Amino acid sequence: MTRKRRLLSGMRPTGKLHLGNYVGALENWIVLQNDFESYHFVADWHTLTTDYEHTRSIPENTREMVIDWLAAGLDPVKSPIFIQSKIKQHAELHLIFSMLISSARLERNPTLKEQVRDLDLETRLTYGHLGYPVLQAADILMYKGEAVPVGEDQLPHIEMAREIARRFNFVFSPDHPVFPEPEGLLSRFPRLPGLDGHRMSKSLGNTILISDPPDNIRKKMRQAVTDPQKVRRNDPGRPDVCLVFTYHNRFSSEAVPEIHSGCESGALGCVECKQRCADNIIAHLGPVYEKRRHYEQHPDEVAAIIVDGNARANEVAAKTMAEVHDAMGFG
Amino acid sequence: MTRKRRLLSGMRPTGKLHLGNYVGALENWIVLQNDFESYHFVADWHTLTTDYEHTRSIPENTREMVIDWLAAGLDPVKSPIFIQSKIKQHAELHLIFSMLISSARLERNPTLKEQVRDLDLETRLTYGHLGYPVLQAADILMYKGEAVPVGEDQLPHIEMAREIARRFNFVFSPDHPVFPEPEGLLSRFPRLPGLDGHRMSKSLGNTILISDPPDNIRKKMRQAVTDPQKVRRNDPGRPDVCLVFTYHNRFSSEAVPEIHSGCESGALGCVECKQRCADNIIAHLGPVYEKRRHYEQHPDEVAAIIVDGNARANEVAAKTMAEVHDAMGFG
Repeated sequence: MTRKRRLLSGMRPTGKLHLGNYVGALENWIVLQNDFESYHFVADWHTLTTDYEHTRSIPENTREMVIDWLAAGLDPVKSPIFIQSKIKQHAELHLIFSMLISSARLERNPTLKEQVRDLDLETRLTYGHLGYPVLQAADILMYKGEAVPVGEDQLPHIEMAREIARRFNFVFSPDHPVFPEPEGLLSRFPRLPGLDGHRMSKSLGNTILISDPPDNIRKKMRQAVTDPQKVRRNDPGRPDVCLVFTYHNRFSSEAVPEIHSGCESGALGCVECKQRCADNIIAHLGPVYEKRRHYEQHPDEVAAIIVDGNARANEVAAKTMAEVHDAMGFG
Repeated sequence: MTRKRRLLSGMRPTGKLHLGNYVGALENWIVLQNDFESYHFVADWHTLTTDYEHTRSIPENTREMVIDWLAAGLDPVKSPIFIQSKIKQHAELHLIFSMLISSARLERNPTLKEQVRDLDLETRLTYGHLGYPVLQAADILMYKGEAVPVGEDQLPHIEMAREIARRFNFVFSPDHPVFPEPEGLLSRFPRLPGLDGHRMSKSLGNTILISDPPDNIRKKMRQAVTDPQKVRRNDPGRPDVCLVFTYHNRFSSEAVPEIHSGCESGALGCVECKQRCADNIIAHLGPVYEKRRHYEQHPDEVAAIIVDGNARANEVAAKTMAEVHDAMGFG
């Protein structure tokens, strides 16, 4: 029997997840948990890099997000679910790794440069924000993660984690490398845009939440933007520029060709098209609702899953740190 | 009874200490332990900021340095002696604090700028080296240190620790500040230069070690530089530019005026002057030798002192981190 490769995935605790998180990331994790030995963690310390003033909502946001993970199909028996800030070794490994990478290297991080521009940070960029790829390297390498599902924008961070792993091995354990060099797995599922056509984000108010009741989904879908050239019911539309068709593509399976041609011919009006889309999303989320309701009604079960995940993560982390201390000769 | 103020002091584990460490810092700590509730720690993680490739000597260097601390008169019952890397909470508080200070602020640190220039670091400056004032802030504030004995070059770091404390209190605990704003205590004892007149440093080979046997001290003192204008025995000398007189000033107490005039008049030759200086240093270190021999012969006692110090430090650290988690609402 060949050993399954170790996979690490984390998300910042943003509370209830939206369909963009689901389609872009979570569905991918659920597929991957069959092929890898997966560890899933709530990256709560990472929240501080961009928003350290609102930490009081982190526990509630963590709970809601973990419920969504479980509802969507993550299997906590197969793959531990744990909380970063409860595994204190991440902080220690982060401190050690901070000595193994130059600050100039971190400043060249293209994803950081984009954030600095988008969030207008400039002189306000915190030291911890500059170093978040170091914390991420610790998150991954603590579990000797060999694979990390990522978006394109995360690839530079994986590259830095590889550099840090190489540097550590070279300096402290040249004969028996402590760390693997992790690989980024680009998701097969492109992200869903928001209902206004922009990036789906709670701060933009353009989301459908995994936990939205059916009526909410129908209402939200009625407000989705469509092809602006299709004004009257029977006007021919362009499904390939229509946002709603992006959703159909993902949720309407065998009906997709018929919807495509109906839109193009003008036989399918936008109102009906959106109704069918909402129905298909609702149908798709049916089993997720069921599981979500179960976990909402059994908070102790969720808490126990996290306690168990933390314990399993802690065991691995303690083992890794023993190897780290041994390789470095102190600590 | 008024509460004693809390004082924090640390040194990187450089092994056996030299007379410069003793006169500039250690003697000061020994005086201060009577007036403050002192905590003394071995700053081993800090070693990684400038030399992460030679960590295997850290445990031995730690032991030798702690023996010197004890031999010189630190009282481990009054003031716990502990090892930074054994109190893992420092790493967590460092991570949290890293989010509360801008990287631009750390880049403006004048002491860092000097190091970058002196060590020719430029592009090689590590992220951890850039952030060492953050780790230092965690070291101090973990114990709610109110006073920190420092050299002039450390004052900018104390200022950053104050800023971090203020920021944390403002954001997370405006009503009941978790952290005090520590104050730097400038040492009353100026540092001794090395035997060649430069900064005393083991890497320059110009030191007298606290643990040097008397014969070594005599031999080293014979090689000390003196006033270059005093060439023959009876030439008049200039004690105020003579390195050896700096040592007399510190170790020859009531004989100082007579040595001063003897040098100036030419009555006191350099050979005899150096012999007397060596004798006075040896006499001063007599009780230190005695205690050092005791601890060398009783390594278990030293180990037990450190275990006890770690336990006492850990207790305070756990309490502080509970307050930190409570203030932030997670962790």
